[in-house]
Amino acid sequence: MELLKERIRKDGKIKEGNVLKVDSFLNHQMDVELFHKIGEEFKRRFAEEEINKILTIEASGIGIACVVAEVFHVPVVFAKKTQTKNIAGDVYTTKVESFTHGRIYDIIVAKEFLGKGDKVLIIDDFLANGKALEGLAELVKLSGAEFVGAGIVIEKGFQVGGNVIRSKGIHLESLAIVDSMDEETGEIVFR
Amino acid sequence: MELLKERIRKDGKIKEGNVLKVDSFLNHQMDVELFHKIGEEFKRRFAEEEINKILTIEASGIGIACVVAEVFHVPVVFAKKTQTKNIAGDVYTTKVESFTHGRIYDIIVAKEFLGKGDKVLIIDDFLANGKALEGLAELVKLSGAEFVGAGIVIEKGFQVGGNVIRSKGIHLESLAIVDSMDEETGEIVFR
Repeated sequence: MELLKERIRKDGKIKEGNVLKVDSFLNHQMDVELFHKIGEEFKRRFAEEEINKILTIEASGIGIACVVAEVFHVPVVFAKKTQTKNIAGDVYTTKVESFTHGRIYDIIVAKEFLGKGDKVLIIDDFLANGKALEGLAELVKLSGAEFVGAGIVIEKGFQVGGNVIRSKGIHLESLAIVDSMDEETGEIVFR
Repeated sequence: MELLKERIRKDGKIKEGNVLKVDSFLNHQMDVELFHKIGEEFKRRFAEEEINKILTIEASGIGIACVVAEVFHVPVVFAKKTQTKNIAGDVYTTKVESFTHGRIYDIIVAKEFLGKGDKVLIIDDFLANGKALEGLAELVKLSGAEFVGAGIVIEKGFQVGGNVIRSKGIHLESLAIVDSMDEETGEIVFR
């Protein structure tokens, strides 16, 4: 998606440790008009698929997922992150390892909001090692819903997540795949 | 907002301790078409105000704020909750006391995304004791931005937040004000 790549080139900041900061438009301040165009692009790329629910994960995925869901005319469910040992109530849960924060956390979704008959598109802002996306896919599987595909705004192509997900035959659409970034020159190479 | 009240009556669940669960359409599963109508209602109620930014707080405020922001054609900034003692970088921060979770946490927003010239509408899903809203208002004040008003989806009218905020002369619009709820009968009385 050319508009998105231009925006990343213009406003993205490369930080030490292969960190790409896009918090001026994607995940702290949020450009909802861009999100709408992102929604239209996902709609085009998943035009052949039947989708009746969008699943995402808190916190920064929620805004994108909601605006995308308006384009798809479907509801959103977001998985909650928790470190609580005792999960109360009827929820599906799995564990996700966060490399960024160096810890393992539980993600949960209430059983009443995900289940048989749901055809689920997973939406998230970033794909790097793929652990969050694998966790969300696991929740879909546990619920008996159908995992239709995953729409990612920015994929870090130099990390393993994209390859792992694609090798499973999952319909993955990443709107911008960063193959390399140079902290010194600020250069970003897209696939 | 009659449509919202009807939805609360239909799908809201009253739990012990004056808890109103609306997670089937507002803050776990999210009905984005309803959010759009909520946005139009806020737009009508704040028609006289000049607004160029929406501020909310993670996590459940983000989805509503993003869809509302589409109607206003402005960007969203969300404050992050953190228990980290050492806040890195250039951020505005204040403390918020959570009665629900019985703890105090820091909320932060990057200085680059809030400041002089910003005319800020705060959007959140719930108003109860008002501590989160006061915290967000404090961030706006610290930044030098102008606090135009606050739009709340559900106000618990039997808790003090609404009165505290209104007594300060703040333009507060709550789309549904619950004056009382009965766990036994399921009856909800709106103001």
